[in-house]
Amino acid sequence: MPSLPRMTWDRPHLLGLEELTRDEIVTVLDLAEHFTHDSQERRKKRANLAGKVVVNLFFEPSTRTRMSFSLAARRLGADVLDFSPSGSSTSKGETFIDTAKNIEAMGIDLVIVRHAATGAPHLLAQHLQAGVINAGDGAHEHPTQGLLDIFTIRQIRGHLDGLTVGLVGDIAHSRVARSNIHGLTKLGAKIIVCGPPTLVPRGIEELGVEVSHSLDAILPRCDVINMLRIQFERQRSGLFPSITEYARLFGMDSARLKKAKPDLLLLAPGPINRGVEITPEVADGPHSAILKQVTNGLAVRMAVLHLLCGQPEEMA
Amino acid sequence: MPSLPRMTWDRPHLLGLEELTRDEIVTVLDLAEHFTHDSQERRKKRANLAGKVVVNLFFEPSTRTRMSFSLAARRLGADVLDFSPSGSSTSKGETFIDTAKNIEAMGIDLVIVRHAATGAPHLLAQHLQAGVINAGDGAHEHPTQGLLDIFTIRQIRGHLDGLTVGLVGDIAHSRVARSNIHGLTKLGAKIIVCGPPTLVPRGIEELGVEVSHSLDAILPRCDVINMLRIQFERQRSGLFPSITEYARLFGMDSARLKKAKPDLLLLAPGPINRGVEITPEVADGPHSAILKQVTNGLAVRMAVLHLLCGQPEEMA
Amino acid sequence: MPSLPRMTWDRPHLLGLEELTRDEIVTVLDLAEHFTHDSQERRKKRANLAGKVVVNLFFEPSTRTRMSFSLAARRLGADVLDFSPSGSSTSKGETFIDTAKNIEAMGIDLVIVRHAATGAPHLLAQHLQAGVINAGDGAHEHPTQGLLDIFTIRQIRGHLDGLTVGLVGDIAHSRVARSNIHGLTKLGAKIIVCGPPTLVPRGIEELGVEVSHSLDAILPRCDVINMLRIQFERQRSGLFPSITEYARLFGMDSARLKKAKPDLLLLAPGPINRGVEITPEVADGPHSAILKQVTNGLAVRMAVLHLLCGQPEEMA
Repeated sequence: MPSLPRMTWDRPHLLGLEELTRDEIVTVLDLAEHFTHDSQERRKKRANLAGKVVVNLFFEPSTRTRMSFSLAARRLGADVLDFSPSGSSTSKGETFIDTAKNIEAMGIDLVIVRHAATGAPHLLAQHLQAGVINAGDGAHEHPTQGLLDIFTIRQIRGHLDGLTVGLVGDIAHSRVARSNIHGLTKLGAKIIVCGPPTLVPRGIEELGVEVSHSLDAILPRCDVINMLRIQFERQRSGLFPSITEYARLFGMDSARLKKAKPDLLLLAPGPINRGVEITPEVADGPHSAILKQVTNGLAVRMAVLHLLCGQPEEMA
Repeated sequence: MPSLPRMTWDRPHLLGLEELTRDEIVTVLDLAEHFTHDSQERRKKRANLAGKVVVNLFFEPSTRTRMSFSLAARRLGADVLDFSPSGSSTSKGETFIDTAKNIEAMGIDLVIVRHAATGAPHLLAQHLQAGVINAGDGAHEHPTQGLLDIFTIRQIRGHLDGLTVGLVGDIAHSRVARSNIHGLTKLGAKIIVCGPPTLVPRGIEELGVEVSHSLDAILPRCDVINMLRIQFERQRSGLFPSITEYARLFGMDSARLKKAKPDLLLLAPGPINRGVEITPEVADGPHSAILKQVTNGLAVRMAVLHLLCGQPEEMA
Repeated sequence: MPSLPRMTWDRPHLLGLEELTRDEIVTVLDLAEHFTHDSQERRKKRANLAGKVVVNLFFEPSTRTRMSFSLAARRLGADVLDFSPSGSSTSKGETFIDTAKNIEAMGIDLVIVRHAATGAPHLLAQHLQAGVINAGDGAHEHPTQGLLDIFTIRQIRGHLDGLTVGLVGDIAHSRVARSNIHGLTKLGAKIIVCGPPTLVPRGIEELGVEVSHSLDAILPRCDVINMLRIQFERQRSGLFPSITEYARLFGMDSARLKKAKPDLLLLAPGPINRGVEITPEVADGPHSAILKQVTNGLAVRMAVLHLLCGQPEEMA
């Protein structure tokens, strides 16, 4: 198993890509690349997090993110505990911070938190000695998803600067969109956000992105399209007319794909609604990197965990 | 700790006993026997599955099967992750196959699946590179339960061929019955299925079994009785008149036991309804192997896990 | 890592502090002290429970107790499995004892049980070969909570005998109160229980405690106050008039604290209702040992686990 390179890293927490420098993002990507080799020869585990305890503190449902963090932490030798708010002391009236401080007092090293409230991970970071990783806070940021999207683009295209990346769908409620915008912009990509006017927040141009309401118009210019997930409850609240109408205008199918560059790269954070954001033949087709993203997510999360609390190899 | 024998095994999945040859079943039983010694000196763990990741993908509730697989996998050095469909991406509309493929993309080696739909594990096996173990699919098969029943009979009686085994109760809805029938028949046992006419499917004689509707009539001929579990919701749907009536005709109590062979062996897949299929004094009496079945389940599952993805000992 | 002292211990179970001798309690406290050093240099794990399997059998919700036991067991090298009654065979009608015996038959060493029924852990202990730890049974006992409270007092004050400890709040429904009373009394502390007449059971003086209904009256005499948690559902049942009224009479705030001894030690088993039993500035102030209790809980539980089923160090 190749030994890990020495990386410079000072941050105790990963709260969002907005606060990271370009160099810090590149550090994560470079380290993640080392871990992609690990996944191919899986029998050996690293011990960089041996003796460390990582807690998943998820206040919103999650399959892949929680499992991906759990697996990443175990691959590095950490112990992982899941905290599920149902059946727990939050139902007895304990505050969010008290719950976290109590968990921390048991001697844990890292808290991975998902919460419906924007800023919840930042609040934790202020109150805990343990490291905090944001696994999604409201519609704000989901930095490891952003990092794995960026990693996947770099892995397949070889570079990021000069690329045009379209983020398509529900920009307003997407923490994935925000993490993509902050990360990709710093690495020199151009971002176009594209969705129905009700789902693109006003003033988002201030983040340095172009705004469009027509996928057909921007498609020929894009090197990468990241198809954001549609949450069906938005329809009930009147934010878009119908699923069929949405799919017709903003979904990706074989016909529309013909208007794109021949090497268009398609990403989707998943879980995908087949036939809504993306048709089955496109999701499973040659442009799609959807499952590669999931695989890369493990390597990216191993990199983040190692940077935040891993020990150098000679101590392992 | 005794070293494991070399076994020949080619299958990547365990989907049912219907598809296994007699020799393959014997291979599992023989290997399981080695693991029963392990459980007696438990401090040492084997490392045959070190670095492997096993996922429990249970879409139906389970205590013993899920825990038994988890323990078996850990005893062999694997990492085990539980996937629980509630609070997960299936509630966000993801398809069954997409959920499984996403989990697989994280780098897992084996999926243990329980699902209400017949054939769900076979579907997974077609779509995944990872190995698939059927932990119960609808009323179809539950192969590791069948194997542990067969293992327990062989352990106590020394052999299987020539034995007469009665399967008593709800044959129609029992995946345990089907796995028992396929496995025991291949190993030379004679099977009598016995239950109320509404709970014995027509045409089941084609599987090579005898059909009876009277436990009292077949009891004197049986060497083994496997008391299937009654699911109370069947009564509501009119499939049998009342719990009391069922217990009177098909339950096992001390009085009825007097009509059986003196060395009758009683199995029950559990969880048992005391006083329905079996009275407490019989469940806890000398004929009952109910808890032995649970203990043997661990050894049988270790054998299956090792055959599907274990490494030879010298690599461990 | 310092090696552990040899301790004399004969009990297979920890069911309550009522049954322990003074010497046995001191043994747990002394061993726990060794483990507090472990938590400070956390990279190294002990192997005293290597190969052992510990099951959390929680029939009532719990965050900190379940996690604390899980972490303690893993720090000693054990495998830990969680049993959650929802989605399990108890929903299929299996009895409590059958569920436990089935889990035990899989080869487990220790069951940690929480149950709404007083005596449930004692019942298990009668039926299982495995060791049983009571993690809270009804309003009866919660011995490891009692032990960690006692440990924290001894750690901060250096001794227990001669101290006056006030237990304040819902004495009637508190298993923490009962474990505190049994343990502290044996170690020479004087106990005053204090709460509204509806929440102090008649005849509790027989346990050797003083009874008071006025916190203001007893406060100047107390060296330690343990603020029990108020369960809001008690109010609905008419056991106290209102949260505000309760807080005014039995809550701890800065003004009331001025009437106490200057070195008063404040404990609370948590999760706390900020502003009810204790105001935020007092909970986070210099008298409070609330988070220290949580940290000590880990060491105390490691001690209990090691005494019940740990191996001597030279075998590890």
